[in-house]
Amino acid sequence: MQKSLLKPTGSALLRKYLQRNLNSAEDIHQEIITLFKPLTVKKGTVLLAHGETCDKLYFVNQGCARCFYLTEQGAEKSRLIAFEGMVITSLGGFISGLPSFEMVDVLENSELLTISRSNFYHLLQTYPEWQQFYAKLLEFAYLYQNKKIEELVTLSAGERYALLLKESPHYIKRLSNKILASYLDVTQETLSRLKSR
Amino acid sequence: MQKSLLKPTGSALLRKYLQRNLNSAEDIHQEIITLFKPLTVKKGTVLLAHGETCDKLYFVNQGCARCFYLTEQGAEKSRLIAFEGMVITSLGGFISGLPSFEMVDVLENSELLTISRSNFYHLLQTYPEWQQFYAKLLEFAYLYQNKKIEELVTLSAGERYALLLKESPHYIKRLSNKILASYLDVTQETLSRLKSR
Repeated sequence: MQKSLLKPTGSALLRKYLQRNLNSAEDIHQEIITLFKPLTVKKGTVLLAHGETCDKLYFVNQGCARCFYLTEQGAEKSRLIAFEGMVITSLGGFISGLPSFEMVDVLENSELLTISRSNFYHLLQTYPEWQQFYAKLLEFAYLYQNKKIEELVTLSAGERYALLLKESPHYIKRLSNKILASYLDVTQETLSRLKSR
Repeated sequence: MQKSLLKPTGSALLRKYLQRNLNSAEDIHQEIITLFKPLTVKKGTVLLAHGETCDKLYFVNQGCARCFYLTEQGAEKSRLIAFEGMVITSLGGFISGLPSFEMVDVLENSELLTISRSNFYHLLQTYPEWQQFYAKLLEFAYLYQNKKIEELVTLSAGERYALLLKESPHYIKRLSNKILASYLDVTQETLSRLKSR
């Protein structure tokens, strides 16, 4: 099947995201938006390979991307999946500047808006509002990770599937069984059984 | 055995910590220090029970404290252990204000300096430098969690023990086998075997 690239759709979604999450004047929003560069990529494109340094943060304009890592046995664990209107990066590597353990790839043909780590840090130096935004982003990342760990230790596979179906049915509609299983931390066989119930 | 409370040792360690981590003037440090109240507690004191809202952040002046949670099977998992000069709270609950999944207790007779969540948020509103400090704290928490997950999926139990012995031998010296096993995510039997090598 031919996978053609998506047509860029501009920065309207990013503008909305900033209006919601960044408490500053419109001209600052506009300046920040110019630092995000469009990138259209095909399904399966690896944005960050194991051991690379993570020097970009992505805003998903169309499509979806994920952070994942491999266990010692070579199994994929999908930590975070970002759909339209969300930001994604390998946050540990983005903070530390060290080679990344986590990888980032795209799960559908996608259009991303990317900001470089150096421009992101430049904004941190320049605007106190961006510092607040960054704290919110870190809080979100921490709470997201916490929720995942909590669900993993307190819910059965079936309960985790039911919760995702209730809270975020688009995950189940849009993701392949392989990806969904690696996100829920179940085998593909278990996932098929849960889906058929 | 009688466990007598520790004698308060003042705020010298907290002052050093702020000088290292908070980029602001000395009189602001002094104002912040007055918001931290001393609390001396005996070994085993629970600072935050399951389901309580987390309205305090603790600086460890003497002793040590930990964050932990229980699995569905009732097993303890120790997520973070804070010794002298570190801050600790159930960060997820501290951010969200929701009932906490995680618990906090002290592992030795301890002297803590505590700041309330409302005073912490007051500082966020008042000082941009405290906003930067908070972002650093969140980064640290995220990287710490990331490192734990990475070690858990890439290292064997023996390798995790050897790494801790190399990087942080005081964990092995000061913690009971039960706590240490729950921190390394191994059984106490495995830990005893690793220690005797």
